[in-house]
Amino acid sequence: MAKISSPTETERCIESLTAVFQKHAGRDGNNSKLSKAKFLILMNTELGAFTKNQKDPGVLDRLMKKLDLDSDGQLDFQEFLNLIGSLAIACHDSFIKSTSPQK
Amino acid sequence: MAKISSPTETERCIESLTAVFQKHAGRDGNNSKLSKAKFLILMNTELGAFTKNQKDPGVLDRLMKKLDLDSDGQLDFQEFLNLIGSLAIACHDSFIKSTSPQK
Repeated sequence: MAKISSPTETERCIESLTAVFQKHAGRDGNNSKLSKAKFLILMNTELGAFTKNQKDPGVLDRLMKKLDLDSDGQLDFQEFLNLIGSLAIACHDSFIKSTSPQK
Repeated sequence: MAKISSPTETERCIESLTAVFQKHAGRDGNNSKLSKAKFLILMNTELGAFTKNQKDPGVLDRLMKKLDLDSDGQLDFQEFLNLIGSLAIACHDSFIKSTSPQK
């Protein structure tokens, strides 16, 4: 039997991101997709640091359209992961920029 | 000035995944890519729950090859995010399976 040890921070984060999607997707009984309404709630409650700096109310509408690759009006888990990936890339780029020597 | 509030769990996880990549990529001064050696250290220290169940020593070699989309022998941040995404999908699928009614 495999030894069970505490999950690492990275493992915990993977589980946590999965759980956030499931929590919000499950609000209406369809736990495999996020409708637009559920996407807006998720953005405002879980990613408030991103949404509250947006002055333009159309930003979330356009973001939803961009993420919804198969245009079914909902986000599946892979489409949600693309959102998380984009935010992580923005976070990473800002770190790289801040640590690069100034020319 | 925007009000500064504590990050949510989701925001913290995005930062944490970014920091893990930077910590390991930065080991040799090139903080934008993970060499194979750095990838192996990352997998064993941060994703031990995944690696310790692997009996086949070739699994990590093949995983590295599969993730390294541009075949430069290193993983950039996007390629690392694809790894995190695959693990999250495995985690999500196992949850969906466990909650689906048995036929």
